[in-house]
Amino acid sequence: MIKAGTCSIIPRVKTGIHVIPKVQHMTNTGYVHGYSEREAERLLDQAQTLTSLLHYDTHYPAGSRVLEAGCGIGAQTLTLASQSPGAEFICIDCSPLSLAQAEERVMAARLGNVRFQQADIFNLPFPPGSFDHVFVCFVLEHLPDPHGALVRLKAMIRPGGTITVVEGDHGSTFFHPDSRDARKVIDCLVTLQARMGGNSLIGRELYPLLTAAGYSDVAVSPRMVYVDASRPDLVEGFNKQTFVSMVEGVRDETLKQGLVSSEDWDRGIRDLYRSCEPYGVFCYTFFKGTGHTGGR
Amino acid sequence: MIKAGTCSIIPRVKTGIHVIPKVQHMTNTGYVHGYSEREAERLLDQAQTLTSLLHYDTHYPAGSRVLEAGCGIGAQTLTLASQSPGAEFICIDCSPLSLAQAEERVMAARLGNVRFQQADIFNLPFPPGSFDHVFVCFVLEHLPDPHGALVRLKAMIRPGGTITVVEGDHGSTFFHPDSRDARKVIDCLVTLQARMGGNSLIGRELYPLLTAAGYSDVAVSPRMVYVDASRPDLVEGFNKQTFVSMVEGVRDETLKQGLVSSEDWDRGIRDLYRSCEPYGVFCYTFFKGTGHTGGR
Repeated sequence: MIKAGTCSIIPRVKTGIHVIPKVQHMTNTGYVHGYSEREAERLLDQAQTLTSLLHYDTHYPAGSRVLEAGCGIGAQTLTLASQSPGAEFICIDCSPLSLAQAEERVMAARLGNVRFQQADIFNLPFPPGSFDHVFVCFVLEHLPDPHGALVRLKAMIRPGGTITVVEGDHGSTFFHPDSRDARKVIDCLVTLQARMGGNSLIGRELYPLLTAAGYSDVAVSPRMVYVDASRPDLVEGFNKQTFVSMVEGVRDETLKQGLVSSEDWDRGIRDLYRSCEPYGVFCYTFFKGTGHTGGR
Repeated sequence: MIKAGTCSIIPRVKTGIHVIPKVQHMTNTGYVHGYSEREAERLLDQAQTLTSLLHYDTHYPAGSRVLEAGCGIGAQTLTLASQSPGAEFICIDCSPLSLAQAEERVMAARLGNVRFQQADIFNLPFPPGSFDHVFVCFVLEHLPDPHGALVRLKAMIRPGGTITVVEGDHGSTFFHPDSRDARKVIDCLVTLQARMGGNSLIGRELYPLLTAAGYSDVAVSPRMVYVDASRPDLVEGFNKQTFVSMVEGVRDETLKQGLVSSEDWDRGIRDLYRSCEPYGVFCYTFFKGTGHTGGR
């Protein structure tokens, strides 16, 4: 089902948050961390909390044709397709490897309303106005030209259709205890993503980006993940395993690029972990924007 | 109706956000900025948006006795008392001047369920367990010992009663276009408030503070004010007139204390104003926490 295409952007380092239903992930790939059943349930709860936070209000009418641009391994595809069983989803990504995983995931979930196709957002193999709606999640942050991507996607949408965009914003992060060192390691991540041509502060920019790309009736809503000790599933699943783990993942690249000394880095990471302690608090904000194409 | 008392804390410089229904303010003080009726309506909308964001879920049962600790000029008192007409509010503040304004405000609104009394949170003139509920808004940020305040207030609540705390967090601020200079002037405000014995990052700390003070079933929810050009009332009323105006207000003190050069300060303020432009975005988060006293 996966067709050939071209791809211009492959990030070298994982600098973005990807909210992946973890239990699904465990089933498909033999997740290696040895979680007990109870912990698996917790992770499922956490994934569902985040999925609900980001996607609860995305539903497409029966009969509509939806382009998911940059579906990756299908983390959002499952949610989209199961929430709108009457809609048809065409999901593109530039990576054949990711598409294969996405297809496996969708088959395991027995969803019949999804097709995959290898394609590049900057070289879309569809006639103008082919879709009723476009959905883009955790993609623009990796693109050197998000404006160009939104303009090209707009051409794919029929008059009167919509686009939905979801992005994170690493600069929205704050925590208790506050720490200059911890803020510095997050700044390193932001700098690294910028050097790779991306923008990890893009969440806050959705309104001006969608407006400048010519969409009308643009509406953006922030979706904050607030984590304290009363929400142990989020402390473990989001704060520790998603956010801090993502930051830790760029240690080598950050040191290699001389953004920080290894001592400063390790102090920052240690301080970030303090936000996961029982007295700690952690906040991160995603943004969800919608825009319309003019006419009907 | 205002009784005498003592007061230990009077901030010298206004470093906190105070969400005051502006039209009310205009009526009482002859607001000098010459707003047209249409602009007054906009400001009212904005004040109501923020009031609703922070207080929509605060209601007290008929017959309950509520202590508002640190009522100031009564900005929240009006909302509280009109939302819970069957409850009785005893509102304390250490400043007789503020209490006089609050009383005038409450009389103008013809609210009969409010009493004012001059008193200090650290020297409360009530027997233990005198109240069913306590409400504290934009107060802890100014106190050198917020833990001590929460402990003292807990003693005032009968078993099975509740406390509600609302605070801002200046470190939650982020905006587009991002600017190191603009972040620096906000850091100055945070430093200034810390030197005055306060803590303008206290919003994020409500969960650990309430828990450490012995409250149970503590629940904290973030309340983000998200502002973009689709919300011109908030651009004007919150971003420009509330937040940036508050930051500008500490210019002299900041320069006097040598926290920043006047050139850097002015660059930072100029950049903050860019977030008020049509391409700008501004985010600020308040926190609302509730806690219970054990037993019944």
